[in-house]
Amino acid sequence: MIQYPGVTTKLVVLLGNPLAHSVSPLMHNRVFEKLGMDYCYMPVEVTGENLGKVFAGLSRMNVAGLQVTIPHKMAIMEYVDELDPLAATIGAVNTITVKNGKTKGYNTDGAGFVQSLEEEAHISVKDKRIYIVGCGGAVRAIAMTLAFKGVEKIYIQNRTVAKAQELADEINTKICSCTEVVGTSLEAQKELLEHCHVLINGTSLGMHPHDDISPIDSSLIGSHLVVADIVYNPLMTKLLRTAKDKGCTVVPGLGMLIYQGAAAFKLFTGVEPLIEEMSEVVYAAMAPSTS
Amino acid sequence: MIQYPGVTTKLVVLLGNPLAHSVSPLMHNRVFEKLGMDYCYMPVEVTGENLGKVFAGLSRMNVAGLQVTIPHKMAIMEYVDELDPLAATIGAVNTITVKNGKTKGYNTDGAGFVQSLEEEAHISVKDKRIYIVGCGGAVRAIAMTLAFKGVEKIYIQNRTVAKAQELADEINTKICSCTEVVGTSLEAQKELLEHCHVLINGTSLGMHPHDDISPIDSSLIGSHLVVADIVYNPLMTKLLRTAKDKGCTVVPGLGMLIYQGAAAFKLFTGVEPLIEEMSEVVYAAMAPSTS
Repeated sequence: MIQYPGVTTKLVVLLGNPLAHSVSPLMHNRVFEKLGMDYCYMPVEVTGENLGKVFAGLSRMNVAGLQVTIPHKMAIMEYVDELDPLAATIGAVNTITVKNGKTKGYNTDGAGFVQSLEEEAHISVKDKRIYIVGCGGAVRAIAMTLAFKGVEKIYIQNRTVAKAQELADEINTKICSCTEVVGTSLEAQKELLEHCHVLINGTSLGMHPHDDISPIDSSLIGSHLVVADIVYNPLMTKLLRTAKDKGCTVVPGLGMLIYQGAAAFKLFTGVEPLIEEMSEVVYAAMAPSTS
Repeated sequence: MIQYPGVTTKLVVLLGNPLAHSVSPLMHNRVFEKLGMDYCYMPVEVTGENLGKVFAGLSRMNVAGLQVTIPHKMAIMEYVDELDPLAATIGAVNTITVKNGKTKGYNTDGAGFVQSLEEEAHISVKDKRIYIVGCGGAVRAIAMTLAFKGVEKIYIQNRTVAKAQELADEINTKICSCTEVVGTSLEAQKELLEHCHVLINGTSLGMHPHDDISPIDSSLIGSHLVVADIVYNPLMTKLLRTAKDKGCTVVPGLGMLIYQGAAAFKLFTGVEPLIEEMSEVVYAAMAPSTS
């Protein structure tokens, strides 16, 4: 049976461009279906030029919420009525609720990553020392969320040291003084990592088709580390395979995608999502084709 | 399997308020499904205050077209880029195409009625003399379309004669000099009707729960007439039942609903709709509940 959205259906709209490969619609619609909720998650590709008008229209329709992805996470901020403090600090919005005609922007990317890390590695990030490689938008969301959550220390290693320093300064000023930049010396990196609890790859290194690249020298990885990757294609990156071989607890990148969606689902609907269903959909969609 | 609109799906949006009882979504979606077309017809209730912004947003999305119903058929006109001449003359738009980012407004209500009349009574309206009771928005669309189609004569009978005279003057000035107003004398009405081919009820008289009211005295109805009603609840109004008993050809109101939708479908998609499927859906939805 094909079911179309009716007059009582609440829409959740994903704005981005391109969206052809997004699994978010599958993930959310599966839960709506399982829970018998009259909602529909619908992807809408939109250009930057049209973003403001499309958003203004949708927020006056039967829309309970929106998700925003590349390339509009920053641009959307000027159109929302209110910003959650974490989203305002990060400077990017991926989730918007529409309540009584008022829009509020959130960022669940960082929180999604942290929840994934905590659930899958059975740890709490509070008072932990975290080592992050990279300095892009995802790292910005993750590092700022970690700072909000009260980690003891964040170390940022980035090819361009000055860019890492900018982010560290921003976190130290706006949230709390917990962030340091890692130098280029392998020896210094190794020494730091020996005292850290978690290593996160926040770069795109290792993403298909560069499956054999790792963002960090394998000699730096000790078995005491929880190692997480934001890359989810392949599911197990070179970094995660190496870490697993060394006995580390590893956290694949898909968890971030699942948990950012789960957090958004809760914000749109007020209902607890079915994480296992979401996981199942996402892993099935990401599994290498056997055909 | 429940199927939700995807990134390639073309939307057709119905704007109005309220829309809970609209059968248009069922009618169009049935045809999309039967023809395997990746389209979705979706009702969206919108207030007059939000109409402009919602329309501006939708016309910049994956929307192939819109339909507009009460109370927005006139208000929407100021927002479309271009107006079809018939819609401009009628002063109401019920169908909008979106092509290459440009919106064009049409009125398929009058054309839908005329097509229903021609198909179901197996006549052509050209050179016919048509007698219409009422002077509201539907009559305006119908009478103007009839004038465009080259009828010989339109007679308009209305409780408020001055209002009928305004419409007649407008048709005679803007389209062609074919319209006259009917006086209040039953004798004069009867004499005119004897020379007409078609009688149309364009008022809401006879609509449920006032099933036993007819807009015209039964003594005026001769068996030579084709009698059509715009009321479709009940399917067979008092007027149509009386006319049928007298041996007239009768045209129920649902035909207008079906054919205005069919004409709109063709405009959105460029594809010929399945009239029989649309009919089946509409009659099934309108059938009295047996529960």
